Amino acid sequence: MKTLTTLTDLRDACAGLPAGDEASAAAAMARQARLTKPPGSLGRLEDLVSWLARWQGAAIPRLDRVDVLVFAGNHGVVAQGVSAFPSSVTAQMVANFEHGGAAINQLCGLASASLRVVALDLDRPTADFTREPALSEAEFLAAVSAGYDAVDPAADLVALGEMGIGNTTSAAALAAALFGGDGAEWVGRGTGVDDAGLRRKAEAVDRALARHGPTLGDPLAAAAAVGGRELAAIFGAALGARRRGIPVLLDGFVSTAAAAPLARLAPDGLAHAALAHVSAEAGHRRLADALRLSPLLDLGMRLGEASGATVGILLLRAALVCHAGMATFDQAGVDEKI
Amino acid sequence: MKTLTTLTDLRDACAGLPAGDEASAAAAMARQARLTKPPGSLGRLEDLVSWLARWQGAAIPRLDRVDVLVFAGNHGVVAQGVSAFPSSVTAQMVANFEHGGAAINQLCGLASASLRVVALDLDRPTADFTREPALSEAEFLAAVSAGYDAVDPAADLVALGEMGIGNTTSAAALAAALFGGDGAEWVGRGTGVDDAGLRRKAEAVDRALARHGPTLGDPLAAAAAVGGRELAAIFGAALGARRRGIPVLLDGFVSTAAAAPLARLAPDGLAHAALAHVSAEAGHRRLADALRLSPLLDLGMRLGEASGATVGILLLRAALVCHAGMATFDQAGVDEKI
Repeated sequence: MKTLTTLTDLRDACAGLPAGDEASAAAAMARQARLTKPPGSLGRLEDLVSWLARWQGAAIPRLDRVDVLVFAGNHGVVAQGVSAFPSSVTAQMVANFEHGGAAINQLCGLASASLRVVALDLDRPTADFTREPALSEAEFLAAVSAGYDAVDPAADLVALGEMGIGNTTSAAALAAALFGGDGAEWVGRGTGVDDAGLRRKAEAVDRALARHGPTLGDPLAAAAAVGGRELAAIFGAALGARRRGIPVLLDGFVSTAAAAPLARLAPDGLAHAALAHVSAEAGHRRLADALRLSPLLDLGMRLGEASGATVGILLLRAALVCHAGMATFDQAGVDEKI
Repeated sequence: MKTLTTLTDLRDACAGLPAGDEASAAAAMARQARLTKPPGSLGRLEDLVSWLARWQGAAIPRLDRVDVLVFAGNHGVVAQGVSAFPSSVTAQMVANFEHGGAAINQLCGLASASLRVVALDLDRPTADFTREPALSEAEFLAAVSAGYDAVDPAADLVALGEMGIGNTTSAAALAAALFGGDGAEWVGRGTGVDDAGLRRKAEAVDRALARHGPTLGDPLAAAAAVGGRELAAIFGAALGARRRGIPVLLDGFVSTAAAAPLARLAPDGLAHAALAHVSAEAGHRRLADALRLSPLLDLGMRLGEASGATVGILLLRAALVCHAGMATFDQAGVDEKI
């Protein structure tokens, strides 16, 4: 991507997004109909193969190279008492990722996915967005570029997750800015705040909505005003994947909210993205519905760090092994429908 | 198991089922609380580990040896026009399993599970249960024993599936016998019957309910009267797994209905079983609710052959790699909750 100097540059980069390859999607569906199973009997696994085929441009898609990208950032809004854990945990968890001790390390091993963790200025939290914009335009664009550049053009799929103490409050504020509603409608317990913490989160979102007012009408300006570096990077990675013909798996509430501005900028902006799961975070179902994303899994997970997305990779692999490996009715000598 | 000569022998074998090991389940939960994640944030993955721990009797359970058992049988009730495919397909699909061309072959490879297919007298379909009992007592007990004996005591988990043209009609009749309701409440489109076929299925179930009347009040007699050999074998395998301390993953509508008599004979008869998915077959959700089994997946699958259960194995593996491989807060030097 050319260097982003202003939000207008980024807005230009989001225009004219490439469409999917309908011929490949149709070829995948035609193959499904010849495999030794009642038509449609693999349900959403069949849809997933068509979706991969559409965005990879291949009738038999590949998952040889699957990248899990986890972006990390810190948040000034934690000063408002919105998190159950201290900000120090963001860097500590990044170290845990690097040493292989986190859930995402184990899940990436199981899913045969490569984990890449991108820590974004952890020693420079965003500003407290209840008082001023979280990120300057330059800071926002730098984080978007970091995400864009983190997507390897050779990847067959990218899963996008995050780590950032305080970031469910940012995600709630961004969701409210993009889709309406007040703080109470979008906040949840995050890593585990009590009732008072939940009220503080809702109030912080409401103050941010009042503080930033009309700015929030522009999806990109809203992402800078109330988002965070890791959210901006997820947005950039979702955009970068689309431009490179790579399907995306979104993770939980924060990952979904971070990518959402792309759907506000173009009606099919997230057509190359699937939602791996609906998390236990209160606003996620509402956000998924607003984006017309149907989650693949509903396991009550709320860990972030791309954990739900990486479990979702297992489902994509299940879909693909059937598609690529099954015999057709002709090959197996199985009688077709009466 | 000692030789089964009468239904009373089998009823005795279903009495005094071993309980789970609550100390192991509690130890697994205690370990989950020390791992580097907010408490409970892996949602149902944490519950699954506790469940495995309870039934394996180990705080860190194992999935080194996972067996997928697929039982196959043929059904006299197909004479009533209840299936979209001819009975010849049962044996043809068994051959497809043996040659590695079916969905279950691909999924077992992905899930690192061993597939064992047990074909039960495919050249001797059950009697048409709209006219007479599907199986004699001796035939039923032989099929139950085949299932019981198919469970290897060395397995860490067994997944139970089936193949049998016509068997969603048997499953609907058995579900109606066990839980009440008429044919229309339990039948679905199976491998893809049209509206007329669906009506024929409901009528066949209703005729069976009228024909066998009071016999159906006994869960085992009902399974003989309207079930099938592969259903009886699944029942036997679920019983055999319980007696050997092996947790069970159930598959779709037929697999669940087949195991259901165990829950009617003992209140916790299926406590060692998890339901991998809710299928698109119409009666499955109702049946799951009646058994208080909460499905792990809802992907619109309706293929049978243990395909949904084998996708479910992937979730169990995801749960277990986190449990066994993650660092604790102490080990990773991560700060705990404020």
